[in-house]
Amino acid sequence: MNRNLPVTDRIADGVPTGSPEEAAALIDDDATLVLSGFGRAGYPKAVPLALAASDRDLSLTVISGGSVGGEVDTALVEADAIERRFPYQATPTARTAVNDGHIAFHDRHISRLGDEVAFGHYGTPNVALVEAVAVGPDWLIPTTSVGHTPTYVHSASRLIVEVNDAQPLELQLLHDVYSRATPPNREPIPLNAPGDRIGSPRISFEPEKLEMVVRTDRPDKSYTFREPTETDEKIAANLAAFLADEVERNPLFASSVNLQFGVGSLGNALMGAFNDVDFGDRTVAYYGEVIQDGLLDMIDDDKLVSASAASLALSREGQERLFADIERYAERVIVRNADVSNNPALIDRFGVIGVNSALEVDLYGHVNSTHIAGTHVANGIGGSGDFTRNSGIGVIALGSTAKDGAIPRIVPMVPHVDHTEHDFSIIVTEQGVADLRGLAPRERADVMVSQCAHPSFQDDLRDYLERADKGGGHIPHDLTTVFDWYLD
Amino acid sequence: MNRNLPVTDRIADGVPTGSPEEAAALIDDDATLVLSGFGRAGYPKAVPLALAASDRDLSLTVISGGSVGGEVDTALVEADAIERRFPYQATPTARTAVNDGHIAFHDRHISRLGDEVAFGHYGTPNVALVEAVAVGPDWLIPTTSVGHTPTYVHSASRLIVEVNDAQPLELQLLHDVYSRATPPNREPIPLNAPGDRIGSPRISFEPEKLEMVVRTDRPDKSYTFREPTETDEKIAANLAAFLADEVERNPLFASSVNLQFGVGSLGNALMGAFNDVDFGDRTVAYYGEVIQDGLLDMIDDDKLVSASAASLALSREGQERLFADIERYAERVIVRNADVSNNPALIDRFGVIGVNSALEVDLYGHVNSTHIAGTHVANGIGGSGDFTRNSGIGVIALGSTAKDGAIPRIVPMVPHVDHTEHDFSIIVTEQGVADLRGLAPRERADVMVSQCAHPSFQDDLRDYLERADKGGGHIPHDLTTVFDWYLD
Repeated sequence: MNRNLPVTDRIADGVPTGSPEEAAALIDDDATLVLSGFGRAGYPKAVPLALAASDRDLSLTVISGGSVGGEVDTALVEADAIERRFPYQATPTARTAVNDGHIAFHDRHISRLGDEVAFGHYGTPNVALVEAVAVGPDWLIPTTSVGHTPTYVHSASRLIVEVNDAQPLELQLLHDVYSRATPPNREPIPLNAPGDRIGSPRISFEPEKLEMVVRTDRPDKSYTFREPTETDEKIAANLAAFLADEVERNPLFASSVNLQFGVGSLGNALMGAFNDVDFGDRTVAYYGEVIQDGLLDMIDDDKLVSASAASLALSREGQERLFADIERYAERVIVRNADVSNNPALIDRFGVIGVNSALEVDLYGHVNSTHIAGTHVANGIGGSGDFTRNSGIGVIALGSTAKDGAIPRIVPMVPHVDHTEHDFSIIVTEQGVADLRGLAPRERADVMVSQCAHPSFQDDLRDYLERADKGGGHIPHDLTTVFDWYLD
Repeated sequence: MNRNLPVTDRIADGVPTGSPEEAAALIDDDATLVLSGFGRAGYPKAVPLALAASDRDLSLTVISGGSVGGEVDTALVEADAIERRFPYQATPTARTAVNDGHIAFHDRHISRLGDEVAFGHYGTPNVALVEAVAVGPDWLIPTTSVGHTPTYVHSASRLIVEVNDAQPLELQLLHDVYSRATPPNREPIPLNAPGDRIGSPRISFEPEKLEMVVRTDRPDKSYTFREPTETDEKIAANLAAFLADEVERNPLFASSVNLQFGVGSLGNALMGAFNDVDFGDRTVAYYGEVIQDGLLDMIDDDKLVSASAASLALSREGQERLFADIERYAERVIVRNADVSNNPALIDRFGVIGVNSALEVDLYGHVNSTHIAGTHVANGIGGSGDFTRNSGIGVIALGSTAKDGAIPRIVPMVPHVDHTEHDFSIIVTEQGVADLRGLAPRERADVMVSQCAHPSFQDDLRDYLERADKGGGHIPHDLTTVFDWYLD
């Protein structure tokens, strides 16, 4: 153990400890639980499993910061213990339960979720259930994510902490916990550059809140990324070519480039691909929601001065790589509150280039990120709206087709809208780049078909536009046939 | 003339002057013009009319801050002089030309428009055409709006100023011009309370930009508001009842209430109605996009400590009332840059209650603010997205029906989405209030039907939901019949 760390003891003397079962017994059957966890990292594991293994008739409301592992979203769902779930779920079991209407679910913008919980939009949280690397009588240090944990600890009446020996104590070197005051006394967040630190590694709490500390030794259920496909690589190449031109042209990028990439395999592939882009003598930083493996390469190659996010959403290999050399990575990696990482004002002030994926995009630039065929939720919107809307340049990147080319992802009208035509202007597929800035809807549709749609669907899309144009209007549509693309 | 004003001369010595026709001749046939004007106030009048009266073959790109008068959006359109138009239009003539596809139009969030122009999303603006109460060699003072004028003056290569004698010199007492730096050196906007001042009454420019000053004497084409209808009054009463409870419950409103109301007759009626609401000993301020007549009542009755906006969108009577007593009103009325009035960070920091209207809302909480039947644009999104998304409490207020009850405004799925289910949670009609916080889509739909829909459409909506539910999913829809409501 590194004795130079500010905190070296996992559990301070005098803190109440107990077993996962004893902690679970402290939670009411119909409690509203607020959990640590973001980017499937740093979530509680032992107490959820103990709750799931109990024979109690639970109807919990479970609010996490973002994505968490199967200990919550599989085990507790299979135990029929969750009645309500916000704001994100990412396991097949939870997804099925949500789509069946068995679990009441709704997803919100990450940047606003903390406030919504704090201001009682979901009632009063009873218990905060939080994973930590270390805990004292009135503080804790989070593990692989900070996310909304500070806000949740502050909002909940009671606190249960899981101290996880599988999470290295050195994680304290990465964290920058900063808490905002309640409006109207809320100050601007005093972060002047993406890589600065303004807070502390610790989350403070009122000592009387702490009910029990449970000790565990169970790693995060980490991400698995597919190898970049040929499509991923073409998307990355098209995006890189666009950005190379844009940073030369746009005064926003005169001296620096601040990047964000969305969560997932495409996001990770794009992060990796950007290691090869020449940004000249500009300072390049990452200011995003999660840190994925691709960023570690950019740090190792000295291409990135800093990487700031709310979570370490790494693969197992990436986690081992980070843990093995954490003091070095800590010089450039910062893990923050999600309401700082995703803050609209900071995304704007840093002139971020925000790159996020989606399920499908329509001809006029509306984006469906969440609901397959408009009805069946995939995961959730996460922070994609925070970045898409507030970035200096908002980009949606996706393949032009799904299911081996059988299904188009450029469609006449998306049946669910998460990001509107007003929010961003750049769409990239493996076919090309649609730069919609300054274009009217009819022009947008033309560029979307010719630049972004797969050739095998271009004729169908042009037929649709011809049909739609008969009805006139600013955004031509034929409402009779607009969703035929989804119907058999 | 009040000799205590900082500036008492309309046109400083040595500034180049000319006729509207001479100024118009300085503008290229295919120029990109950036205009002052916001909330149909403070826009240039003489030079657009001179351009319209010329027999030139013009194909102008016209970018205003927001809504402008018929001198631009009727006269220039009738002269077939406009090829492109951003980001808002509000005359029947312009609307028809846009919906016919004759003018290329696109509307953007007000908060981001200034940056988009400054960073070249619409090319390089050739000429800024700006109305002023006074002008000097390297400065001007705007008239009844500030809007995006500072950014446009800064972005354009050349400048033509209309000094309008119909606009009182005392308007300089209202203005607070503040300019942000380009990211990544952009500081937080140092505004600590809605009524503070952080800038100057003047817009500065490089003296070599100023090509010509034209003198005019022509008032704004001011707003006309209909008298509040019975529906308006019921909406106001429902909203007031909701807010009276909410400010008691929500820690956000412990000491103050900062309101915003959207532009238009309903917005004005709501502003008027809020004069009767008892907010206890809380400080009540307005932090919005435009100042309408209703706010003057609240100021006169000492209910409002300040009213901050980007424009004075007053009726003729309201304008006369303000002008007659402008020094008194100047103690509480502030007219700002639109990228300050609509700034996401400030709307968040002040915990604004944002109330905006819409064309229609769907059962799951998606909002159509702009496109009738999804195709024909009405006006534009304006700042409704800035406030709906970033407010502490975002409210959409609208009547439950249109066309004397013939058309429902609560529908299964809106055919154009401007604000998503993720962005806000409160919908108010004359029927009641749908508080969607913490509800899943199926629950949202139930509340929307029972609380907000007109009774004459509730059965149809329930039939739709029953049909939709057969397909399952998180957001049940029947894509085959979802738009039958728009088809005859």
